[in-house]
Amino acid sequence: MLDVRPVGYVIGLLVATLGLTMLGPLVADLAAGNGHWPAFLESAAITIMTGTLIAMACANGVQSGLTLKQTFLLTSSVWIALPAFGALPFILGATDSNLTDAFFEAMSGITTTGATVLTGLDDLPQGMLLWRGILQWLGGIGIIVMAMVFLPELKVGGMQVFRSEAFETMGKILPRAAEIASRISVIYVTLTVCCALAYTATGMTPFDASVHAMTTISTGGFANSDASFGAYGAGAHYVGTLFMFLAALPFVRYVQMLGGSHMPLLRDAQVRAFAMTIVVCVLAISFSLANTIHGFSEIAFREALFNVVSIMSGTGYASADYMLWGPFCVAMFFFIGLIGGCAGSTACSVKVFRYQILFASIGAQVRQLHSPSGIFQPRYEGRVVSGDVMNSVMAFFVVFIVSVGIVSVLLSLTGLDFITSVSGAATALANVGPGLGTEIGPAGNFAGLNDTAKWILSISMFVGRLEMMVVLVLITARFWRS
Amino acid sequence: MLDVRPVGYVIGLLVATLGLTMLGPLVADLAAGNGHWPAFLESAAITIMTGTLIAMACANGVQSGLTLKQTFLLTSSVWIALPAFGALPFILGATDSNLTDAFFEAMSGITTTGATVLTGLDDLPQGMLLWRGILQWLGGIGIIVMAMVFLPELKVGGMQVFRSEAFETMGKILPRAAEIASRISVIYVTLTVCCALAYTATGMTPFDASVHAMTTISTGGFANSDASFGAYGAGAHYVGTLFMFLAALPFVRYVQMLGGSHMPLLRDAQVRAFAMTIVVCVLAISFSLANTIHGFSEIAFREALFNVVSIMSGTGYASADYMLWGPFCVAMFFFIGLIGGCAGSTACSVKVFRYQILFASIGAQVRQLHSPSGIFQPRYEGRVVSGDVMNSVMAFFVVFIVSVGIVSVLLSLTGLDFITSVSGAATALANVGPGLGTEIGPAGNFAGLNDTAKWILSISMFVGRLEMMVVLVLITARFWRS
Ligand SMILES: [K+]
Ligand SMILES: [K+]
Repeated sequence: MLDVRPVGYVIGLLVATLGLTMLGPLVADLAAGNGHWPAFLESAAITIMTGTLIAMACANGVQSGLTLKQTFLLTSSVWIALPAFGALPFILGATDSNLTDAFFEAMSGITTTGATVLTGLDDLPQGMLLWRGILQWLGGIGIIVMAMVFLPELKVGGMQVFRSEAFETMGKILPRAAEIASRISVIYVTLTVCCALAYTATGMTPFDASVHAMTTISTGGFANSDASFGAYGAGAHYVGTLFMFLAALPFVRYVQMLGGSHMPLLRDAQVRAFAMTIVVCVLAISFSLANTIHGFSEIAFREALFNVVSIMSGTGYASADYMLWGPFCVAMFFFIGLIGGCAGSTACSVKVFRYQILFASIGAQVRQLHSPSGIFQPRYEGRVVSGDVMNSVMAFFVVFIVSVGIVSVLLSLTGLDFITSVSGAATALANVGPGLGTEIGPAGNFAGLNDTAKWILSISMFVGRLEMMVVLVLITARFWRS
Repeated sequence: MLDVRPVGYVIGLLVATLGLTMLGPLVADLAAGNGHWPAFLESAAITIMTGTLIAMACANGVQSGLTLKQTFLLTSSVWIALPAFGALPFILGATDSNLTDAFFEAMSGITTTGATVLTGLDDLPQGMLLWRGILQWLGGIGIIVMAMVFLPELKVGGMQVFRSEAFETMGKILPRAAEIASRISVIYVTLTVCCALAYTATGMTPFDASVHAMTTISTGGFANSDASFGAYGAGAHYVGTLFMFLAALPFVRYVQMLGGSHMPLLRDAQVRAFAMTIVVCVLAISFSLANTIHGFSEIAFREALFNVVSIMSGTGYASADYMLWGPFCVAMFFFIGLIGGCAGSTACSVKVFRYQILFASIGAQVRQLHSPSGIFQPRYEGRVVSGDVMNSVMAFFVVFIVSVGIVSVLLSLTGLDFITSVSGAATALANVGPGLGTEIGPAGNFAGLNDTAKWILSISMFVGRLEMMVVLVLITARFWRS
């Protein structure tokens, strides 16, 4: 039997911690004097108490380490427990959401997807906006720790290529997950503070700047206005672009930079490929925008830049309704969302390094095909890619694509049209945020969808955040035996 | 230097043979007394003469066999040379097409895609309809021979899993490609004749029955009416379903059946998976149709059956405009087209066996992930799938999906909307035929597209028919060196 107590203990502590963070919005609403603070008091009380009880109930089973199966269970169940409790303020608070909407919003927050079912964001009490920001900000740091500590250990989705590297850099000095997490946290907090200050400098209120900094550095994408970043001017767009870009880079490089390493970012193949892809897409889309809507102007460049970086980093802010930019831009934004940022960041989707490994393999194979006597091996960052990593990456890609197909069909069963179904499936599994079409596109939101569709999308965000394979492992009957 | 003469010799002979088949439509138009025969005379003369000249010019370089590179070159150039000459009757004849349309129609014919740029099919002279049927019929037999003889040798797209098997069955007795081809041809002709007789029995005119038999057994999908199979009744639909299904099965099994083997079809894993998938999709779509349009009736079942088998086998006939069947059916038809039939048939797309191999690999990996001490190897038909085959299949899938993305973006650049671009890319690369939407959907056709889009689609059909990887090998600079 799988002993779930060590997992329960950690989950309990994390849930209790989440409850503590609810005191932030409580204070915000108290300070604003808007009378909405009791919802957060109530939520915090329930969450802290339940979390503590779970931890206490499991405390007698705590061991010094976790088995592989327990690690799988922990990695996945945390992304169900936290949104379950994170949903409480939406049910009890000013939004007065039903369970479906509240769970969707919390899952979308904690997985940093950023799709919202709330409308009238501009009129929400500050506590609620802050809570959405906190959910994404906590999700973001959780994702980096998961990507750097847990996924490489679990050998999921080819993340093991980063294992030796992360441990070379940090493992010898900082062997334990908690210490890795603390190093990363310092950088994460620093980036968030810098981002908030920069937003404030562009004229954003300190409150909006803080919440947006939290949803920028987590590449989450929740905004405080129904117009998303359309509510702000050029300054905020450039600041947002810079920090979304920084948030989609591998955080281990920042650790190395602080350690005095020379240009670690520039020497990282996935960073170079990510930057190059952005340059190409921004040029193509600016050119298209210049020819159709804006003429050759700063605004054409800025709109292209902001939205490309937003979608490719998986943030999902929109500064304009790019559904109106013509078919080329629409198709580009769909496929850009399927590329994604760098591994070891808060970004999501297939991710640049997987394409690099897949393309390296295809290149080696093509050479092998016409020169069968030669020996061609795929390389990533100069090292031969092992069959193990290759198969993991391949499995991730196939499962991702097939999942987009299956989720699209399920969504279409609930009556959503083809574009909404396919783009909804893709944006949820890739944790990007906006889909295509008038309903869930950059100018729409997910409020009008039926409940079944919302649950399908909530599960999809969960599956996508766990890099597909973790969920596949969990649903295997064999996993639960002996 | 690559000696292209042996390739040129074979191409020349094939082109001349194509010219000879133009005498069929010539006779048909002469017999119908419609005055359209001179176009075929002219086309035949040009084609036979040019083909003969090419063959003669290359005859001095003929060797007893082909090198690997020459085989790659032959396999690909034949799918450019034949449509180039096959386009002549469309330019010179009653359709009076321009070069773009004529090449598109011929490429769509010979690759058995079945997308058409011609309208007013019902009023076309018989010779022209027969020519479209002949193009697909020749393409169909060419595909089977390519899939059974050439692709396994080239180790492209995982087709090498069928190498040992095909040679076990036939290689020892019939070691040469020409003899394999002749065995297959007997079956191909027999099936075509049976299909034509069955269509005639349902009340189709002998001419329509013959042309449709040719485009059914080749899973091509060209029809003699703008309404496709909407022009016919229940009998034709059931006959069509049966023969489209038979045409999408591996032809090597028919050879075994004639050789007295016991139930070779039932013992083939891809046949079972293909049939099961069809059953599930037909049930789901009949149920949806019964609930929305037709009630629980024979017509709901028949419409579902015919169109599912048509799209999954890659034939592309439509008996109704399934764009009107609601979002679930639309999404289903899109993804069914990305499954495809069995390898070693005239069917196309990703194909069932590749999904089976990919899923087997994912299953083995998932078990490995939670039980690292065990040894789990993916199996197909009871045998361990080698890393070589695994990588080929994976490369095919990735290249296919990425190509759909790239072609979609290119099509959207020409101004096509999102659904038309994405479904057009998929239907061309998968050689299915109809796309989605009002323009290129089952009730539309490709006539109204701009010329650039038509060329992009023509190239996509070519790339898809060559199972992606052959083209990748050819465009490598290294291929052409030394
Ligand atoms: K996001
Ligand atoms: K077809």
